[in-house]
Amino acid sequence: MRALGWNDGELLILDQTRLPLEERWLHCRTVEEVAEAIEGMRVRGAPAIGVAAAFGVVLGAQRAVEQGRRISAAVGEAVARLAATRPTAVNLFWALSRMEKVAEVAGEGREAAARLEREAEALMREDEQVNRRIGRWGAELIPQRARILTHCNTGALATAAYGTALGVIRAAREEGKEVEVWVDETRPFFQGARLTAYELVQEGIKGTIITDSTAAALMAKGWVDLVIVGADRVAANGDVANKIGTYGLAIAARYHGIPFYVAAPTSTFDGSLADGRAIPIEERNPNEVLQVAGVRMAPPGASALHLAFDVTPHSLIDALITEKGVLRPPLPDAVQGLLRGET
Amino acid sequence: MRALGWNDGELLILDQTRLPLEERWLHCRTVEEVAEAIEGMRVRGAPAIGVAAAFGVVLGAQRAVEQGRRISAAVGEAVARLAATRPTAVNLFWALSRMEKVAEVAGEGREAAARLEREAEALMREDEQVNRRIGRWGAELIPQRARILTHCNTGALATAAYGTALGVIRAAREEGKEVEVWVDETRPFFQGARLTAYELVQEGIKGTIITDSTAAALMAKGWVDLVIVGADRVAANGDVANKIGTYGLAIAARYHGIPFYVAAPTSTFDGSLADGRAIPIEERNPNEVLQVAGVRMAPPGASALHLAFDVTPHSLIDALITEKGVLRPPLPDAVQGLLRGET
Repeated sequence: MRALGWNDGELLILDQTRLPLEERWLHCRTVEEVAEAIEGMRVRGAPAIGVAAAFGVVLGAQRAVEQGRRISAAVGEAVARLAATRPTAVNLFWALSRMEKVAEVAGEGREAAARLEREAEALMREDEQVNRRIGRWGAELIPQRARILTHCNTGALATAAYGTALGVIRAAREEGKEVEVWVDETRPFFQGARLTAYELVQEGIKGTIITDSTAAALMAKGWVDLVIVGADRVAANGDVANKIGTYGLAIAARYHGIPFYVAAPTSTFDGSLADGRAIPIEERNPNEVLQVAGVRMAPPGASALHLAFDVTPHSLIDALITEKGVLRPPLPDAVQGLLRGET
Repeated sequence: MRALGWNDGELLILDQTRLPLEERWLHCRTVEEVAEAIEGMRVRGAPAIGVAAAFGVVLGAQRAVEQGRRISAAVGEAVARLAATRPTAVNLFWALSRMEKVAEVAGEGREAAARLEREAEALMREDEQVNRRIGRWGAELIPQRARILTHCNTGALATAAYGTALGVIRAAREEGKEVEVWVDETRPFFQGARLTAYELVQEGIKGTIITDSTAAALMAKGWVDLVIVGADRVAANGDVANKIGTYGLAIAARYHGIPFYVAAPTSTFDGSLADGRAIPIEERNPNEVLQVAGVRMAPPGASALHLAFDVTPHSLIDALITEKGVLRPPLPDAVQGLLRGET
């Protein structure tokens, strides 16, 4: 399963707002089309956003070549537009920065555009390799039989392929472990009920969807062996921004003595931010909460707050699983070591 | 605002599955119609279910009189049918038991049916009085300015009138306190987004709807001064069964040092159960999770678990607000005192 495809100057984006009932591919040929797909959450998930944005830069460069414009200017415009789409996931800025660095040395013309295209393709390929390594490291933390609770979608659809937290579940299954998954439906976009459940059905892994607020009750019953989630940004001390609801899960897991793991590539780490309080949290349109499946739920005159992410302090996290290994508490030291390249 | 009306041998039920966008009244003239309205959550909320069931018994008795059947047999059948509708809220069984006791001494014929009718009317009237007393006691716990988080709907729509937890918020407002409410949308039925938000808009109280999993993030920001919820059953030690999600809220409130209050009439207390583990928890149709507003969210082949309630241990509850006063920890002792009539 893939969320993105690159096909001869066209970025194919599987429209995740339509899944699982419809498989509709968007054909993006401009920076603006890619930017709007990211804003509209047609492609989502920190690593997938990064990959999509990289190809958005390529499209900007290719259109510039066609139109006889300078690539360097076009890349600058593309980066500015794409960087303004969503603020929380740092993979977006990481990928744009990587493309900018290549653009700086690539020069102008068709060959420069081709070099940018190769960089984006490398970035996409690497993401899958990175995820498979995360999966292998993470699978070591999964018992032979495990009932795993996860939130949002962190699978193939959230990445170039394979997934982060869901990649760990995939890897555990590939190693012959008996895994069952509690799938938080993940309001307001239902990424769990729509996307994670879809991936699990396709993989033949047993999954059971629950409303987000059911998780704590299952923990109390002893039906959850561990929690594993992804991340949109990890601060220098190990604090994690992730899909809204992650923080409450981490509190509940700690209250019940259940391990709480975060799986994320090093491209999700942001050493420039001392702690999670500095991570910008996206506030989205309240209508995305007030309306469900196109139907208004709330009465006229009602208002809503739509925070897309929350921050989980490192003190509630039992392990950060990266492609370079598993970081254990004290996480501030472990993350510093990772950022210095010691892991 | 009223959820129920009694009009000349007919129980009027405001269909809460249609609110807030449509005000549709069901006209129930048989036990079966009332039972199906309770099962289908067209009337919901522990006290409102109790009142509706009491009138269901009256309808059974009235139909028996019309058909020349014995009231005692009809009441027995009505109680059996209504008791099988929903297992968790004890007010249902409390109300049915009260009606049965009256039936035992009322004899047969038109006057006996009238006596049952007067009992149900008294029960409805008392529920409003009880709620207003809960409101007054509870308002003492609310600071002059308070941002209050609540879950599900515990207002006029969940009771005969006024409400329990929402009644406390109403009473605080009536006393001139400045209250703002964070309204958990309350999946899967959106009682918060649909019903609580509706009552708040009508009262002119500021309310903001959030997805259920947003609550902990708001607590971390310092934006929640207290949490107040209702109850479907309180065990002898003070453990509380309430709408799914309550338990996770209580854990998060404790983690942040935020007071967590439960408002419930004494009719919600069940002295026969030693603790919350003995409270039967309703498991409802998974399709109520898999479909939203008539639209299937999950992929073919996906399954769900739909627990309608969870249990919050008394250790996480800072006060139980009843019509007889506020119970404080240690709650097992306080509840025992209440049940012995010492409060």
